[in-house]
Amino acid sequence: MAKSTAKLKRKVSKLKKKIKGLKADLQDGSTTSSISPLAPVGGFPALPDIGGVTFAAGAAGVKYKNRTDVMLAHIAAGSAVAGVFTRSSTRSAPVLDCQAKLADLQKTDLVADALGVVVNSGNSNAFTGQVGAKSVDFVCAAAASVLKTDAKNILTSSTGVIGQPLPHDRIADILGELSQNLSPSKGADAAAAIMTTDTFPKGVVASVELDGKTVNISGFAKGSGMIAPDMATMLVYLFTDAAVTSSAFQAMISAHNKTTFNAITVDSDTSTSDTLLAFATGAAGNAQISDADSVQGQKLGAALHGVMRDLAHLVVKDGEGATKFIEVAVTGAADDASAQIVALAIANSPLVKTAVAGEDPNWGRVVMAVGKSGEPADRDKIAIHFGDILVAENGWVSPAYTEQQGVDYMKQQDLRIATDLGIGSGSATVWTCDLTHGYITINADYRS
Amino acid sequence: MAKSTAKLKRKVSKLKKKIKGLKADLQDGSTTSSISPLAPVGGFPALPDIGGVTFAAGAAGVKYKNRTDVMLAHIAAGSAVAGVFTRSSTRSAPVLDCQAKLADLQKTDLVADALGVVVNSGNSNAFTGQVGAKSVDFVCAAAASVLKTDAKNILTSSTGVIGQPLPHDRIADILGELSQNLSPSKGADAAAAIMTTDTFPKGVVASVELDGKTVNISGFAKGSGMIAPDMATMLVYLFTDAAVTSSAFQAMISAHNKTTFNAITVDSDTSTSDTLLAFATGAAGNAQISDADSVQGQKLGAALHGVMRDLAHLVVKDGEGATKFIEVAVTGAADDASAQIVALAIANSPLVKTAVAGEDPNWGRVVMAVGKSGEPADRDKIAIHFGDILVAENGWVSPAYTEQQGVDYMKQQDLRIATDLGIGSGSATVWTCDLTHGYITINADYRS
Repeated sequence: MAKSTAKLKRKVSKLKKKIKGLKADLQDGSTTSSISPLAPVGGFPALPDIGGVTFAAGAAGVKYKNRTDVMLAHIAAGSAVAGVFTRSSTRSAPVLDCQAKLADLQKTDLVADALGVVVNSGNSNAFTGQVGAKSVDFVCAAAASVLKTDAKNILTSSTGVIGQPLPHDRIADILGELSQNLSPSKGADAAAAIMTTDTFPKGVVASVELDGKTVNISGFAKGSGMIAPDMATMLVYLFTDAAVTSSAFQAMISAHNKTTFNAITVDSDTSTSDTLLAFATGAAGNAQISDADSVQGQKLGAALHGVMRDLAHLVVKDGEGATKFIEVAVTGAADDASAQIVALAIANSPLVKTAVAGEDPNWGRVVMAVGKSGEPADRDKIAIHFGDILVAENGWVSPAYTEQQGVDYMKQQDLRIATDLGIGSGSATVWTCDLTHGYITINADYRS
Repeated sequence: MAKSTAKLKRKVSKLKKKIKGLKADLQDGSTTSSISPLAPVGGFPALPDIGGVTFAAGAAGVKYKNRTDVMLAHIAAGSAVAGVFTRSSTRSAPVLDCQAKLADLQKTDLVADALGVVVNSGNSNAFTGQVGAKSVDFVCAAAASVLKTDAKNILTSSTGVIGQPLPHDRIADILGELSQNLSPSKGADAAAAIMTTDTFPKGVVASVELDGKTVNISGFAKGSGMIAPDMATMLVYLFTDAAVTSSAFQAMISAHNKTTFNAITVDSDTSTSDTLLAFATGAAGNAQISDADSVQGQKLGAALHGVMRDLAHLVVKDGEGATKFIEVAVTGAADDASAQIVALAIANSPLVKTAVAGEDPNWGRVVMAVGKSGEPADRDKIAIHFGDILVAENGWVSPAYTEQQGVDYMKQQDLRIATDLGIGSGSATVWTCDLTHGYITINADYRS
């Protein structure tokens, strides 16, 4: 017995190596084969030109070879700017710099000068001590020089490995060339340059009529791991030609951030670098919006919300190892905040996420997650739906529910788990993905 | 390209199925082959007889085939009893029943009647509505009958699948036979009968001299997944022949639970069934302890603490898919509670746990976890040790640290990650394991 067990074990180990090799072959042989199965079928959208905004991307060799890793954006003088950032107490040097600068830039309705944005992938410049701040200053000075503006108008983000010095000279060295190549049509290049473990670039567009003028919104994002809500987001850049003051713009971005980027979770981990920056150039020619709650403000806000929600969904759909997209809805909670905590307890539960990965309609794990959330709940008032299927009610499995219904439902790629607590009117919706072998593979080897 | 990719993909899927089959073969063929690599080398300890306590175990066929799944314990009249339970709002019917009964049993220093404990594996009788409570009553009535006591003296636990009716008749049917076979030496059989996904039974013993008498403590536990702190524990049963009142005993158990079972986490998920029950028969003949803070009380408490800590460590070492045991220590926090939150943020971080699985000394992820905890921290005052190796300090990697040191350290099976926040005197230690492919395999297929 012991001998045949050892033999079987060796065989398993051999097969595992074989599979590893095959997986590597798959990745090398075809880039499309490594793309998340949840990537949008249509691919990256055609980004509309946003009057006053130009982009360029290049390869500085920060860490990766044979790909672009720096993007430069230029935003015309007279634009509004808004931003939200990670609340991590160990946030990175560029985040701290952006927060300080944004406070100044938002002191007037619009920024008098042109603005520049520099983003690199491959190195997050996080936990790099005082050297990190100096790297930010170095990059900002170089960008200010080539864009002929002041360093106070340059915002930077860095994403990638933590704790290694940023090769700021390599980034600075290519900014001159990038500034020569700025173009309104290079948003897709910019979106590709900021990717790290992302398997596809993420872009979303929208338009809205304001005062008879067509206002365009264009956004892109990166992110696939170290993603959890309540700390802003990954890296997200939004551009619109709407005319809006910085304060009204900030109010819209902050409000919609709560139900979009702050309502997604991949692994409950929070980046030190999460940044959302949004720019509004006014080139569309609508009457300037100075109140987010005005009719026009709400219209613009709704369009921004759509772009932010869709980008947030794309980030989840590129969650490391994700094979299923899960909407977790909670209703009937004591209040909205309580509903959000319960929804996140479900969405972050490794046991719920592995059950989804295994296409197992294990509603008992949803009950467990409700219980562990610490929020008010009454076992006998909980009702759980998988999609339209009533699975559990009155403290137990629903009499009409059959296991086969659940098994069939779980085979779908887009799932909805809805839990009604039956004790109040609070509600919240969050989005997550399943937890698979792919997540382990990606994260057990990230630096090696 | 597309054709060969499809071919490769089919091959991977075929190999995966093959591996699944081989793994099943390994599990069926030999129970020893699937034991956690972290299981204690010495195996299950010889449990000392505890005067007044007898055990029996049997196979009721609750869910599993070809193994025992019910344990019965009988505790002599005149014993003290203590317990701690999950705080889940969806806790199971047996937990609710135990909590209600314990409140009554602890109204006197010692319980006048004999006590019985019935535990089954394979079905947790959780989220089974009103039917669940009836099943508990049914089992308690049957046990009371064969043990010739009242149902109010019978405590039950159930562990296993959530949401399915407990086959209480099958359990009740074997209690008569079990009551005939009760023996002081069958603790190991009892420990084996309560296992679910455990890969080894968990027992710990200790003794302490009180008033010149040798007091023995014997404990066993089950648990390997759905384990998180702050909600008591998995299933744990402690027996001692010490003479102690129920109130003093409860005070000891509650206090030491905080730094033992409530300081471990496998997957941040919390069971609906977590239960610790402790019994003290007084057979050792020491002077009865009625104050946990007395000299003798503290001696007994320290011995109990050791048993509880070692059992808690065994549960982590049997964490689903675990290959590494990790002690996470946090010092220099604002206060102890803050240190505990930071320690759990590190211990529960999927990115930290996968880095350990990959033997990657990725201290940046520890920094990230400190940051996301939401607790007071100053990036530039954080110091991180891996074992004795100073990895990071002053907001950056330590000048003396080399990556090779970290790589070598991470190859060990027992790891210690110590983080000093440098801002106060709060401290906490928690224990966890790594997050591996094994966890995904176990939990994506648990019900299938």
